[in-house]
Amino acid sequence: MTEVVPIRGVLSPVVTPFDANLQADAQRLIAHCRWLLANDVGLAVFGTNSEANSLSVAEKRGLLDDLADAGLPPSRMMPGSGCCSITDSVELTTHAVKLGCAGVLMLPPFYYKGVCDEGLYRYFAEVIERVGDQRLRIYLYHIPPVAQVRISLNLIERLLTAYPGIIAGVKDSSGDWDNTRAMLEQFQSATFDVFPGSETFLLAGLRHGGAGCISATANVNPGPIARLASTWESVDADDQQAALNAVRAVFQAYVMIPALKAAIAHYGSDPAWRALRPPLVELGRAECEELMRGLEAIGFVMAGLPGCDGMTMCKQPL
Amino acid sequence: MTEVVPIRGVLSPVVTPFDANLQADAQRLIAHCRWLLANDVGLAVFGTNSEANSLSVAEKRGLLDDLADAGLPPSRMMPGSGCCSITDSVELTTHAVKLGCAGVLMLPPFYYKGVCDEGLYRYFAEVIERVGDQRLRIYLYHIPPVAQVRISLNLIERLLTAYPGIIAGVKDSSGDWDNTRAMLEQFQSATFDVFPGSETFLLAGLRHGGAGCISATANVNPGPIARLASTWESVDADDQQAALNAVRAVFQAYVMIPALKAAIAHYGSDPAWRALRPPLVELGRAECEELMRGLEAIGFVMAGLPGCDGMTMCKQPL
Repeated sequence: MTEVVPIRGVLSPVVTPFDANLQADAQRLIAHCRWLLANDVGLAVFGTNSEANSLSVAEKRGLLDDLADAGLPPSRMMPGSGCCSITDSVELTTHAVKLGCAGVLMLPPFYYKGVCDEGLYRYFAEVIERVGDQRLRIYLYHIPPVAQVRISLNLIERLLTAYPGIIAGVKDSSGDWDNTRAMLEQFQSATFDVFPGSETFLLAGLRHGGAGCISATANVNPGPIARLASTWESVDADDQQAALNAVRAVFQAYVMIPALKAAIAHYGSDPAWRALRPPLVELGRAECEELMRGLEAIGFVMAGLPGCDGMTMCKQPL
Repeated sequence: MTEVVPIRGVLSPVVTPFDANLQADAQRLIAHCRWLLANDVGLAVFGTNSEANSLSVAEKRGLLDDLADAGLPPSRMMPGSGCCSITDSVELTTHAVKLGCAGVLMLPPFYYKGVCDEGLYRYFAEVIERVGDQRLRIYLYHIPPVAQVRISLNLIERLLTAYPGIIAGVKDSSGDWDNTRAMLEQFQSATFDVFPGSETFLLAGLRHGGAGCISATANVNPGPIARLASTWESVDADDQQAALNAVRAVFQAYVMIPALKAAIAHYGSDPAWRALRPPLVELGRAECEELMRGLEAIGFVMAGLPGCDGMTMCKQPL
């Protein structure tokens, strides 16, 4: 196998900012990515929380180029590249590999429901064969509440056997610890990493040999999540986990993506961040105020968040 | 409103043939479309049964050009153009309108689940505004078993109020007659057509003022389905419906798309037709034989189906 340094620790499915015409805003995205990197959080751009499937393949290719052109390190990137069609997935994955991305996070094709593992195996195998690059590292993306199509343990086993090294890990966003634990016990190795899909399972995952986590709320709480990942053997680890859970719980009371964007808009004094592409809808004013009160009540801060003037953090009253 | 003759009667979500490299096979597609048109069945290319979401936007644009270049009438086409991203949907819809297609069949964005009608309304409104063409005719595509995201009666009402004429109809693939009847009673008009998503409800729909149907099995049984649509007031209409149901029942015992392709491959003596893009998988040999026995048992034929030699119909033993 070609040597590729595995990407580990905490990653964020980076939220995608849009301008007033609902075009992706590369400058705000770059600034947010820099802030995440400064907090030791890697860039799982084009994840579910990035509204990746609300972007065309051409838009995602362009944004990836923008990030690389801005000097952000591809070694810290794991872009989502799984689309419903093999041709789209191959195009985006090939582009990510050529840019030197550490890996790609790949959804199963998610339009047809009730498809069999044989069909999913053929899908991933076809993508791997067509990309045809030994630098390819695929992290399978299991998120049944949204994709509805599952990445089963049997499918992982079969793909790992056929493509060891290239099948480099899995993100488990099932929210089911028993499933994450089974993945850890069966597959975690030097060349296969299991990432829980939420920091809720960060400590438990690390204690079972896991690689870190890929979590929506790493968009807003990156520093503390990354600190637990790097100090999980310290005596205060359980307290750290409890503090992370408290922040997560506040966000989880709302639709996640609009809530993340509302917080970034508020703490960065940059209302443009609230914009979402349909079918997602921003939080209403009352919800927004309630969210901010909930965050203030637990002393939440977003230290160093780039604000509307470029680089200062400010926290304004609503 | 710009004058566009509404497309009515029976349409088929035309199955997409693939070559040995899983590239779409334009020549076989054109031949199949000609056979459907000769049987008075319109072309809902890029539907669910067309594996539309297994094709990139560029592939669909190219195939639409191929059909038009072959002289097939756009006035008999209702291509599927609804993608997860607004940008993709706008690109494909704009292309269809420019070619003069009678309308487009539009899925809601189907990645995010549990989205609200406000978000779906904004999605369709944004597509309509961006396409910005008075010739646009959108047929909303309600297929909750697959898309999981619903087109509610309230959403139809709101869109119809905002965009009368442009919102031109709905395909109801819920399989729930009560829902289809509610759509017919509330919305069927001279400028809004309700198409049941299966010929199972063809006669019932027509008796309630419906426009016809858009059905997977019109790929294999076009003549008899179209005959009922044009003679539904005749005395043998219920007998015709029963005969259609018998054919449908045989196919419905299998995964529909591979079963349709297996039948076309068999009756046209053209095994290439069996190919599917992953994650779909062709029927196994035993299933295939069982399907053909089931069809022979009810005297099923595919008269005039273009075979592997171009234009003759032949029915070989397996």
